[in-house]
Amino acid sequence: MAGTAERMAQNQKQVSISEFFEKNKHFLGFDSLTRSLITAVKEAVDNSLDACEEARILPDITVQLTKTDDKKNIIELRTEDNGPGIPKASIEKVFGQLLFGSRFHAIRQSRGQQGIGITGVVMYSQLTTGRKTHVRSKIATEASAAVVDIGLDTRKNKATKQNEGREIWELPDGTLKEHGLEITTRMKGKYQRGRQSVYQYLRMTSIVNPHASITFIDPDGEQHHWPRVTDRLPRKVEGIKPHPHGIHLGQLQRMCSESTDSRMTVFLRNNFSGVSSRASKELLAAAEIQEKAKPKSLKAEQLRTLIEVFQGERHLNGKPVKLLNPPTNCLSPIQELLIKKGLSKTIDSRFVTTMTRAPAVTQGNPFQVEVGLIFGEGMPADKPVEVLRFANRVPLMYQQGGCLLTKAIESVDWRQYGLEQSGGRGVPKGPAAILVHLASTNVQFTSEAKEALADNEEVMDETRKAMLELGRGLRKHLEKKKKMAKTREKFELVNDIIPAIAEKSAAILGKPVPDLSGSITKIMSAVIAESSTTWNKTTKQTDVSITLFNYTSRARAYTLLARWPEEDGATMENNSHGGRKEATGVWAWKLDTLDPGQTTTITYQLAGVERGDWTDTDVFYRGSQDVIGATKMDEKLLEEIRRREAREDEPDGEEVSEADDGRQAENTSAPPIKAPKTPGQQTLMGYGGDE
Amino acid sequence: MAGTAERMAQNQKQVSISEFFEKNKHFLGFDSLTRSLITAVKEAVDNSLDACEEARILPDITVQLTKTDDKKNIIELRTEDNGPGIPKASIEKVFGQLLFGSRFHAIRQSRGQQGIGITGVVMYSQLTTGRKTHVRSKIATEASAAVVDIGLDTRKNKATKQNEGREIWELPDGTLKEHGLEITTRMKGKYQRGRQSVYQYLRMTSIVNPHASITFIDPDGEQHHWPRVTDRLPRKVEGIKPHPHGIHLGQLQRMCSESTDSRMTVFLRNNFSGVSSRASKELLAAAEIQEKAKPKSLKAEQLRTLIEVFQGERHLNGKPVKLLNPPTNCLSPIQELLIKKGLSKTIDSRFVTTMTRAPAVTQGNPFQVEVGLIFGEGMPADKPVEVLRFANRVPLMYQQGGCLLTKAIESVDWRQYGLEQSGGRGVPKGPAAILVHLASTNVQFTSEAKEALADNEEVMDETRKAMLELGRGLRKHLEKKKKMAKTREKFELVNDIIPAIAEKSAAILGKPVPDLSGSITKIMSAVIAESSTTWNKTTKQTDVSITLFNYTSRARAYTLLARWPEEDGATMENNSHGGRKEATGVWAWKLDTLDPGQTTTITYQLAGVERGDWTDTDVFYRGSQDVIGATKMDEKLLEEIRRREAREDEPDGEEVSEADDGRQAENTSAPPIKAPKTPGQQTLMGYGGDE
Repeated sequence: MAGTAERMAQNQKQVSISEFFEKNKHFLGFDSLTRSLITAVKEAVDNSLDACEEARILPDITVQLTKTDDKKNIIELRTEDNGPGIPKASIEKVFGQLLFGSRFHAIRQSRGQQGIGITGVVMYSQLTTGRKTHVRSKIATEASAAVVDIGLDTRKNKATKQNEGREIWELPDGTLKEHGLEITTRMKGKYQRGRQSVYQYLRMTSIVNPHASITFIDPDGEQHHWPRVTDRLPRKVEGIKPHPHGIHLGQLQRMCSESTDSRMTVFLRNNFSGVSSRASKELLAAAEIQEKAKPKSLKAEQLRTLIEVFQGERHLNGKPVKLLNPPTNCLSPIQELLIKKGLSKTIDSRFVTTMTRAPAVTQGNPFQVEVGLIFGEGMPADKPVEVLRFANRVPLMYQQGGCLLTKAIESVDWRQYGLEQSGGRGVPKGPAAILVHLASTNVQFTSEAKEALADNEEVMDETRKAMLELGRGLRKHLEKKKKMAKTREKFELVNDIIPAIAEKSAAILGKPVPDLSGSITKIMSAVIAESSTTWNKTTKQTDVSITLFNYTSRARAYTLLARWPEEDGATMENNSHGGRKEATGVWAWKLDTLDPGQTTTITYQLAGVERGDWTDTDVFYRGSQDVIGATKMDEKLLEEIRRREAREDEPDGEEVSEADDGRQAENTSAPPIKAPKTPGQQTLMGYGGDE
Repeated sequence: MAGTAERMAQNQKQVSISEFFEKNKHFLGFDSLTRSLITAVKEAVDNSLDACEEARILPDITVQLTKTDDKKNIIELRTEDNGPGIPKASIEKVFGQLLFGSRFHAIRQSRGQQGIGITGVVMYSQLTTGRKTHVRSKIATEASAAVVDIGLDTRKNKATKQNEGREIWELPDGTLKEHGLEITTRMKGKYQRGRQSVYQYLRMTSIVNPHASITFIDPDGEQHHWPRVTDRLPRKVEGIKPHPHGIHLGQLQRMCSESTDSRMTVFLRNNFSGVSSRASKELLAAAEIQEKAKPKSLKAEQLRTLIEVFQGERHLNGKPVKLLNPPTNCLSPIQELLIKKGLSKTIDSRFVTTMTRAPAVTQGNPFQVEVGLIFGEGMPADKPVEVLRFANRVPLMYQQGGCLLTKAIESVDWRQYGLEQSGGRGVPKGPAAILVHLASTNVQFTSEAKEALADNEEVMDETRKAMLELGRGLRKHLEKKKKMAKTREKFELVNDIIPAIAEKSAAILGKPVPDLSGSITKIMSAVIAESSTTWNKTTKQTDVSITLFNYTSRARAYTLLARWPEEDGATMENNSHGGRKEATGVWAWKLDTLDPGQTTTITYQLAGVERGDWTDTDVFYRGSQDVIGATKMDEKLLEEIRRREAREDEPDGEEVSEADDGRQAENTSAPPIKAPKTPGQQTLMGYGGDE
């Protein structure tokens, strides 16, 4: 025994972060050859999108893959963007040092968070092919581009450099590149097609980043292009300060000991979001800390008390101290129409439902869940539904089974909403796809590869609620469909049989065939609305028609209303019945009185929307008798639509001035958002929720 | 645009590894309060087991949880072991520095790999309660124990210390602690019972570490004890050198540039496993590198060529250079009996099948897959089968859905093996549990939390094959059961109806009832063996009985044979028919000739085995007529059993001498193991495989 402990201790040593990730490269997403390639593309493209968004540039991104040695699975990856570029002095740190970056301490929504991604690519390339990564960077304020080959000294976590220099970056059209970044690197990798592929990653990325133009040249030289479909950049996200709810004691201790603020009231106001002048005083009073106490001088026990006040465990006058919620301008949701688009881009399906939850907070971090469901023909009915996961506008391609978002889907009993599901748990089966997006200032993944979300009660709760809402929408749709089918069947039956009987009877009796329209409407006794929304290949417009049938025995007067994508820049053309704007995105037609058996059809075209953007039209009515196939409009519902449209109408794409750009987040307003436990709900389909 | 790149670059900075993991503590398994507590216990216990195993000490481990503040979810965790202890000077690094450890560069099977685990616990405690972790360490060569409170300066990734000192460590019985380690720490956490709990983790750990004695005092003060059930330590694992198949170009470059070897032949022999003197020359010849070349002097292109030779992409005289496989004494599988025990410990089920694959290699790392399946009453038939996952003897409690081992199970169509499975994919349903263990020198997890295995083609392949084998064993069992049931039904029918007919006929004819045994056996025309293996609560022994029925019309002579757990220290008592040892673990009885209709029953008790250790007895026979319910024994089968028993009989638990203890791995023999693509298979049930 003697000496064993000492001998064992001698073998211990410190490992550098780069050595660690070199050995555990699978943590970063470099496991199989296929996935390694996707990971590399993803890291480069995510960086380009982040940089462009921060610099308020509409991104043009090119990804090129070349097989340099097919037999040995060696692939060259080249990516080029029109982002701001990286100053020469920073290049080696960004590409050659792990955990170097700008977003680690920032609290705002971004794709990159950790300062690992692109350095991981440089490391993986070096490890598998021994080659350095070539970087070319042009920034606006310099005439020439900086070029350099970057490698990694993993023992020291420092960059190694070669062939450093400057060059003129000429574009194919002979002009000079204003600003941008190009990365060229060689690695072991395997290109393949299918659901988990570079192609699919870029396709999904283009769907949720419609402001980006993405070009992909695959290893066979084939060029794929996803054009920019909007010139609106995503809303500029502001960095916010930590919220007291999300602070751990250890962090507070560090913040205090490093603070130079003269008094605690100032410290609290300056370093936290959600803390007003009043709140800072109340927090200190509840913690029995003097307002003029120096942050540096506080004792461990005082800080422990303050944390308890932060977390509402210790009260002031019997009540927890009220704090504002963190501002939500740090979030940039995908928004409803894009979700619809994402789901229906390639599938012409009749039914899409989406749902955007109000922002909520977990551990002081604002987050927001958006979901969508598509159901209908064109998808296999006997397979698990396709799950499309996104986090901060990045498609998640791997580890579906280990992801919180999947678990939320699996936790719902979809059988009651019309999908097959063995045992009422697990991913349901049926002709459907489910999209789910988490926008958050701090997306908690299960690993550095950022492919699956870790467990979190609040996010789970929000996602599950959103799923239930989707489910209810689906059930309502299926019930409506069934009702419509039944009515149609009855109508056809009545329309076939009654005239036949009448004819036969008339013939037998030798009398003329009577007018039956009255009888038919009497038997049907229903008003029916039918709408069709079809993409017209020739005109590149969306044709909409809405028909109202009066199968009752009385004359009926209605106002019909329909939603349309006004906010997304669509225009309504050749509107057969005129009408007027009821609210943003809602058009209304006051129809002439319909006599029994009479029919009216409204038609119009939508210009300025793409195929897949608008596949279904919600129809509403005002009038006494219920209309099958439409929803009764009242003030409450209209108000809800107005609110919803207004929410989507927040300014989000303007070029900001320099002054604006550099401004700090101190004074951003903090619109009150709902607490995690009782968040608001909005649905597109299923207005006025049937639950 | 001007200045944007520069402004953005200004915000970038270097983050320390501790800051990184503090922010991303969920990567380490600190997400929910429940899981955080399990993670902390796991890291401490895994360390204790590893240290004891390395120091060749039979571990005594105590885990104590105390709720110090129930309302605020603050729990104190205390763990104590009898390991070698940690020298005073090393304590602060082990507990207060991330990525400090002894196992990162070692290539051998161990629980810990990364030098993160226990420091993560210290960090999490500090973050959530602001408290340092108290460490008490006693090593054999010092009279007193070192004590210190350790925290973490996350900005610098350095320990902070308080209350450093020495003290006499007295045990409750008044004696002095010889050596060992005690850790006391306070953290936010939540204790709960159930499938994912500290209790369950310790229980599973005790099953696959039967050499450990584990005591758990839960927050209610209740004491749970899992005693040591064997004094044999797991086989001592030797560190090995990297195998050329697993080396990347980047690593080779670094190894060469740091090498002081004078010539390449020496370099290759000294730094790699599997490279003989002959092989080193052939490798260099194939790469066209001079044998006397200095490793330091090699050019990038030469190394690239050498890697191609390593990987068999470049040949010598038209053939790849042959390398020995890496030695497998770096692995320590759980072994069959423990797997059976693990599965049937608490469930009295009739059928358990296990399967240990031969060691294989992936990317130069030896690994071995072991699996087991239990089927029968006592488990719910309409729920997914329970999956018990282990890696290097550590139970995996989380992220089942994202784990390669689960995916291997899901990839099998279990319907053909008698389990329910929707669509032939996914975790099957039925009254069964599946255990799967991966032993490897480099377990590739999906994250630092070490709860799920990352994708790897070879490991997937091996695990899937093992599952198929389990499936075949299950199907065979179910078929056998069905056949037995049919025979029994026939027998009962014949035995009921024939005498009744005889009686009636005799009565009608007024004749005496004839002797029917001849007719009955004629109709049955079968020899049947039935065995029962039952745990006897009173005697604490396992009662075995084997009955042979001769339902044929001729006299029959048989030798019956049965397996028994001889190797695990069992003894056979009150053996009714004497018999003799046929081979290790196989007993044989030459029975007297059985006349038609006659029956013989062999009975004996097994002492020295625990409840659940031995739940089913395989019966074999030698004789002309087939026996339903037993397997025909021949030389080939006997040889297989002998081989198997011998494999389990490798020396693996002896206390090693100091000299032995310090020896390096250079000269360990390298028994040839099979290549990953065509590994050998051994099954306990289903000898001679029916496929």
